Amino acid sequence: MADAAPLPSKRKRELVAEAAPEAPCREETGAGVGNGSAVTARLPFSGFRVQKVLRESARDKIIFLHGKVNESSGDEDGEDAIVILEKTPFQVEQVAQLLTGSPELHLQFSNDIYSTYHLFPPRQLSDIKTTVVFPATEKHLQKYLRQDLRLVRETGEDYKNVTLPHLESQSLSIQWVYNILEKKAEADRIVFENPDPSDGFVLIPDLKWNQQQLDDLYLIAICHRRGIRSLRDLTPEHLPLLRNILRQGQEAILQRYQVRGDHLRVYLHYLPSYYHLHVHFTALGFEAPGSGVERAHLLAEVIENLECDPTHYQQRTLTFALRADNPLLKLLQEAQQRSN
Amino acid sequence: MADAAPLPSKRKRELVAEAAPEAPCREETGAGVGNGSAVTARLPFSGFRVQKVLRESARDKIIFLHGKVNESSGDEDGEDAIVILEKTPFQVEQVAQLLTGSPELHLQFSNDIYSTYHLFPPRQLSDIKTTVVFPATEKHLQKYLRQDLRLVRETGEDYKNVTLPHLESQSLSIQWVYNILEKKAEADRIVFENPDPSDGFVLIPDLKWNQQQLDDLYLIAICHRRGIRSLRDLTPEHLPLLRNILRQGQEAILQRYQVRGDHLRVYLHYLPSYYHLHVHFTALGFEAPGSGVERAHLLAEVIENLECDPTHYQQRTLTFALRADNPLLKLLQEAQQRSN
Repeated sequence: MADAAPLPSKRKRELVAEAAPEAPCREETGAGVGNGSAVTARLPFSGFRVQKVLRESARDKIIFLHGKVNESSGDEDGEDAIVILEKTPFQVEQVAQLLTGSPELHLQFSNDIYSTYHLFPPRQLSDIKTTVVFPATEKHLQKYLRQDLRLVRETGEDYKNVTLPHLESQSLSIQWVYNILEKKAEADRIVFENPDPSDGFVLIPDLKWNQQQLDDLYLIAICHRRGIRSLRDLTPEHLPLLRNILRQGQEAILQRYQVRGDHLRVYLHYLPSYYHLHVHFTALGFEAPGSGVERAHLLAEVIENLECDPTHYQQRTLTFALRADNPLLKLLQEAQQRSN
Repeated sequence: MADAAPLPSKRKRELVAEAAPEAPCREETGAGVGNGSAVTARLPFSGFRVQKVLRESARDKIIFLHGKVNESSGDEDGEDAIVILEKTPFQVEQVAQLLTGSPELHLQFSNDIYSTYHLFPPRQLSDIKTTVVFPATEKHLQKYLRQDLRLVRETGEDYKNVTLPHLESQSLSIQWVYNILEKKAEADRIVFENPDPSDGFVLIPDLKWNQQQLDDLYLIAICHRRGIRSLRDLTPEHLPLLRNILRQGQEAILQRYQVRGDHLRVYLHYLPSYYHLHVHFTALGFEAPGSGVERAHLLAEVIENLECDPTHYQQRTLTFALRADNPLLKLLQEAQQRSN
C-alpha cells in the first residue's frame, strides 16, 4: 500500500507532527476489508520487540511504537508493526461513580488545601485506545516519526508547475476511502449519507475519535464524487456539494449527537492527508489536530471565497507546513528561487 | 504591570482557559504543609456528588470536577471540593512489557492494514494523577471553570451595526499598550522597533513566553499608529505597515533568536484581545493558544486579501468563537435572527 504512496505518507507525517492529540491517521492503502465488532481479540501478530519510540507526547498521553513481531515464526528478521497507544478521555458518569466509591489511592503529598494522589481505577476507566498498523512499511515508520516543519507559501503557479506534477508522479491508492463509499468497510460506522453521486457524501466518525464523549467529537465527510483532489480543484461547480456537506453534515451531527452547528469547526485541510475531497467536523472546544491556521480552511469561508472569485483556489497563494524532509519542500523552494 | 493593565490579565485568563496542558495551578494559601509518601490513603472528605464539570480536555485526558462532599455529616449543604483527574503519560518499558504479554483486547474495527482495539492494561498502567482542592472556595471554582464557546459568523453589516457599537460602548483601557509604545513600561524587553509613527511598530516578547527556550517562542508586534482597532479597520493604506511588520519582524527574530521566517507562524487575531492593531509571531512547531483557524489570520494572507480586494475586511464575513456568556454573542444572534 503505502509503498505506492510516499507523498501522502509525508503529508500525513506533517499532520501528525503538527497535530495534537497526535492520533493515528490514515492515508492511501491497499485492499482488505472488514466491519469490526467489540469482541475479545488478539493482536494480529505474535511478540513485540520495541525497536524505536517513533513519537510520544506526555501532554496527550500517546505513544507511537515501532516493533519487530513474528520473530519466532521462522522469519529471522521478523516483521515490522506499529502500535499506537493513547489513553482515553474521562467520562463524567464513570468518574462520579468512581469518586463516590472508595477508589484505591496512594498519597503523593498534601499541602494546606491541596493534596495529590495516585488513583488506580477499575477496569472500565483504564481503557487504552490501541491502533495497530501491520504489516508496516518504511513509509509508515517515517510517517509517524516526528519531524521538523517549514512553512511554505504555494502560489497558483507553484501548484500547477510543482505540486500537481509531483502529486501525479505518485501512484496514490485510496482504496480505504472507496471501501467506505462502497460499504465494503466500516458500513456500520456511517452516521449519515447523501447518496447523490455528484453532490452527495458519507459522514463517518474519524479514526481519532473513540465516540465515548462529545468533548473531542471528530467526524469526516467524504464526497462520493471522485477526482476532486483538494482545495486547489474547487470551482463554483462544486458549490452544491460543499453546501450539502456543510448544511447536511451539521444537521446529521445535531440529530445523532445533539451538538449544534455553532459548536462545530467545519474545515478542509490543505495540504490534505489523502487526495479525495473530505471535510473535517470537530468540536469547537477541542484543539483538534490540523485545526491550526496553517492547515485548516473553514468550509463556510471556502464557499464564500468561491462565490466571490470563481478562480480563487486556482489563483491564490496558499500557506502550509511541510516536514523538512519532504521532497516537495525542496521542489517548491527551488521553483521560488528561480522565480525571484 | 498587571495592576495598571486589566486587559493583559484578561488576556492571560483567556489563555489559561484556552491553554493546555491545563495543569492545576495553586495560589496563595494558609499554612499547613507536609511531604506525603506513597501509602494507601483516603480522600479528605466523604461522598462526592458532582455539581459541575468545571473543565475537561479530551486532548489532555484531564477533567476538573466540582463536587458537594460531607453532605451526610449534618451540614445539609455539604462542602465544596474540586477533584482534578489526569491520566498519566506512558512509560516505554511498561508498554513494551504489556505488548509482549497477551493484553486484554476488544476489537473496535479493522480495515486493510489498520485495526483498532480497546486495551485493558494491568494496574501499574492505569494510574490516574488526582489532585484535590478541599475545602474549595468560590474563587477556586471560578479559577478552574471553563466557558463554553459558540462559533459566530460576523458579516460586514454585523460588524458595523452590532460589534463596533458594542465595542464603543465599552471603555476599554489600553494604557498598557501606550506605556510600551512610549517606553514607559517594558522598554528593556523591546526586541526591535521601527519608530515610524505611521508604518512603524515595536516587537516585544509576549507575556506568555518565558524566553527560556525557543520551542514556544512567542512575540508580539504592536504598531505605533493609533486607531487601527482590528482586522476590520484594515485597508490598502495599511499595506506598508503590514509589510514592515511581516518582513522586519521576521528579520529581527532571525537576528535575535536565529529562528528563520519559515519556522514562524505570523498572524492576527479576530476578535483580538485588545483593540490596538498587533501581530503574533509564534514558533511553527508550537500550537500557540489562539492559532486555530477560528481565530488566527495569517498576516501574509491578510496582505494578499487587501491587495486583491481593498474592501475585503469591511465586506467579508469573519468567523470567530465567543464565550457563551459574552454579551456580544446575544447581540449578534439577535441581529442575525432579525435579518433572516
